[in-house]
Amino acid sequence: MSRPGRPRVVIVGAGFGGLAASKGLSRAPVDVLLLDRHNYHLFQPLLYQVSVAALPPGEIAYPVRPIFRRQRNLEFRVAEVSGIDVARRVVRTSAGEISYDHLVLASGAITNFFGLDDVARHGFDLKDLPGALRLRNHVIRRFEEAISTEDPATRRALLTIAVAGGGPTGVEVAGAVSELLRRVLRRDYPALPAGDVRVVLLEGGPRVLATFPPDLSRAAADSLARLGVEVRFGALVEGYDGRRIRLRGGETIDARTLVWAAGVRAGPLGASLGAPLGRAGRVTVEPTLQVPGHPEVYVIGDAAVVRAGDGEVPALSPPAIQMGECAARNIARAVASEPPVPFVYHDPGTMATIGRSAAVCAIAGFEFTGFFAWLVWLFVHLMKLVGFRNKIVVFVDWAWQYVFYRPASPLIVEVYRPPVGTDSTPQRT
Amino acid sequence: MSRPGRPRVVIVGAGFGGLAASKGLSRAPVDVLLLDRHNYHLFQPLLYQVSVAALPPGEIAYPVRPIFRRQRNLEFRVAEVSGIDVARRVVRTSAGEISYDHLVLASGAITNFFGLDDVARHGFDLKDLPGALRLRNHVIRRFEEAISTEDPATRRALLTIAVAGGGPTGVEVAGAVSELLRRVLRRDYPALPAGDVRVVLLEGGPRVLATFPPDLSRAAADSLARLGVEVRFGALVEGYDGRRIRLRGGETIDARTLVWAAGVRAGPLGASLGAPLGRAGRVTVEPTLQVPGHPEVYVIGDAAVVRAGDGEVPALSPPAIQMGECAARNIARAVASEPPVPFVYHDPGTMATIGRSAAVCAIAGFEFTGFFAWLVWLFVHLMKLVGFRNKIVVFVDWAWQYVFYRPASPLIVEVYRPPVGTDSTPQRT
Repeated sequence: MSRPGRPRVVIVGAGFGGLAASKGLSRAPVDVLLLDRHNYHLFQPLLYQVSVAALPPGEIAYPVRPIFRRQRNLEFRVAEVSGIDVARRVVRTSAGEISYDHLVLASGAITNFFGLDDVARHGFDLKDLPGALRLRNHVIRRFEEAISTEDPATRRALLTIAVAGGGPTGVEVAGAVSELLRRVLRRDYPALPAGDVRVVLLEGGPRVLATFPPDLSRAAADSLARLGVEVRFGALVEGYDGRRIRLRGGETIDARTLVWAAGVRAGPLGASLGAPLGRAGRVTVEPTLQVPGHPEVYVIGDAAVVRAGDGEVPALSPPAIQMGECAARNIARAVASEPPVPFVYHDPGTMATIGRSAAVCAIAGFEFTGFFAWLVWLFVHLMKLVGFRNKIVVFVDWAWQYVFYRPASPLIVEVYRPPVGTDSTPQRT
Repeated sequence: MSRPGRPRVVIVGAGFGGLAASKGLSRAPVDVLLLDRHNYHLFQPLLYQVSVAALPPGEIAYPVRPIFRRQRNLEFRVAEVSGIDVARRVVRTSAGEISYDHLVLASGAITNFFGLDDVARHGFDLKDLPGALRLRNHVIRRFEEAISTEDPATRRALLTIAVAGGGPTGVEVAGAVSELLRRVLRRDYPALPAGDVRVVLLEGGPRVLATFPPDLSRAAADSLARLGVEVRFGALVEGYDGRRIRLRGGETIDARTLVWAAGVRAGPLGASLGAPLGRAGRVTVEPTLQVPGHPEVYVIGDAAVVRAGDGEVPALSPPAIQMGECAARNIARAVASEPPVPFVYHDPGTMATIGRSAAVCAIAGFEFTGFFAWLVWLFVHLMKLVGFRNKIVVFVDWAWQYVFYRPASPLIVEVYRPPVGTDSTPQRT
């Protein structure tokens, strides 16, 4: 597609940052090539809802191509990026090498297991759709096992779900899982003793939502307790064999499910730039989001570290979107031979939801909790979903759940490649 | 759960027949145990819609437990049945042996590859949800490959989809795939040459929909042609290596996708009954649906052969439902020491849809085709979906597609268990 004389901008990653950078370049005299390993954009703030069977996957994932159907200067490719050669200005991908004039690295964050290989093997994280679906299938399957289990200790372990990490993801998934298990699944498994269901949130520090104001942390902990979540502070996971969690200090918890929401870090692509790395492997960029020494390379979103006031810009979707817009603007300026502008972060506030009807929000200096905060959370997330159909369908599902306490799709569906001779499979019901 | 003195009825399979038998026993003085390998009931008539990304999986699959929440005499278990010992009256399952007083075998049909192992290995069938999702992912991925392919012959093969079998499933999937590829996906892949997309329906006999009246077969073939489907008669597949289809007579077709809808047969469970087997491995039952010599065992739906008038009851959902009701009635009569009644088939007609707005229906002696037939098809299928939410959401999706020609969810999502050390995966976007 590259027309002669038009600079080529390669954007790696179709998350919030990559989409914003792509859209920001729609009127610039450049050819944009957007790459992602998936053919869809994932609305990650609602990923935990898929993991608790509250939303089906299609409602928080949106195919990339239709988003850019009208953007003539953009092409999209499904490709896995394995490295970047800044000297030759090429991106190495599963579809071959791709050269660029300007590069935007928006490759996001991955789960940080802090070297705990057994946790990585037996635990579940919440970074992508297949992972969320695996967690969903796993929990439902443990319930199906529990109903046929005579031994009380085994049954309790099958019905115990531990969540490591008291940040927004950990709080949201713990609240949602506890609500789902207690109110919804128990209605379908009346034979299971009520007291056997246990949801434990393991937080290493002294409070949940450590980046929120302290009174909101307290409100969140109270809401979690009301939903039946056992919140443990100073609880650091040291190991997990799929059956038993070992905490620092020697305590153990028997749990057949461990959700790891205790840390993220940037993926390894940033390191291939040869730029200085900050905390959690993030690329330390200039205030203009450019890589030091490589003004043609921008790093944005969770892959980058940028200073804002006293601290760092948080790894959330609003700053990723704003950084994408800033990178697009600076590329357009570079093409027009104008100097780049520095990134300025506009903090829109933070929010987290706890179960079906409570949330905590800190927006523009105001703090609020409870049902009103939940309505704000719901409205904000609904409006941010890509695509009118998704907004409608998610709204129907949420209204449905709210009225009937019924999850949308607790199915166990696994996509696997069956062996040859499927026609001799014992039973197809 | 078994109360002393209450006979236990085990029902194998939560398809149309198994559900009908289960519901039919709700007021009988028996304890019902329903078994299925999945935790959901699948609305198989719409499975092809999932394979063409027109409906997400959750909208045609319904969890079994909520269906029976109010039926006190029923328990449900997720279990795979590997065999039946009629002498000892036990069912062998992945959850151990289960004894029964009455057994209803409703284990359905599986794909019949007629010994073509390479077709089984490289082709796709449409019998379960994972298979439909694999097909969906496969086709979208071939489109993504095609867009990066320079060689015209390879590109055409990537964009060629062959469907073997001109029965209702083959006709429906060919029509839907052709429509999807030509009108929807092409809008997202403007760089692909229009003429490279090819959908071929391979029918071994002289007409499609061989069980329908001949003029409806002609109408269906005409509708398919209008949708751009190449219909080939007398075309018998002899082999497929994933790239090239070999037909009897030596002709070959280069196609990276082959959907096998050319035959089904009963699963192997029927054979373990020791009863006489009819065509396609189906158990030949008495007019009362009982197994000869074992009046406590009933076989229903696609697993059974029953005479009706001059021929056999067709392997479709309406007869499966009616047989389930008849088996339930006969079990209730047996418990009350009354003689069984014979099964009487009430033919509600047959219908098949071709693409977005045409169908053929043969109902109560009337035949109709085109848009009105499509409305009838749509209404009938919508009303038969389990659950009010599913009806609403599927209706929204259908209306959405009809107005915007846009499939609901063309996502490539694979559920796999990643290797240890996921945190070192190259890229998470």
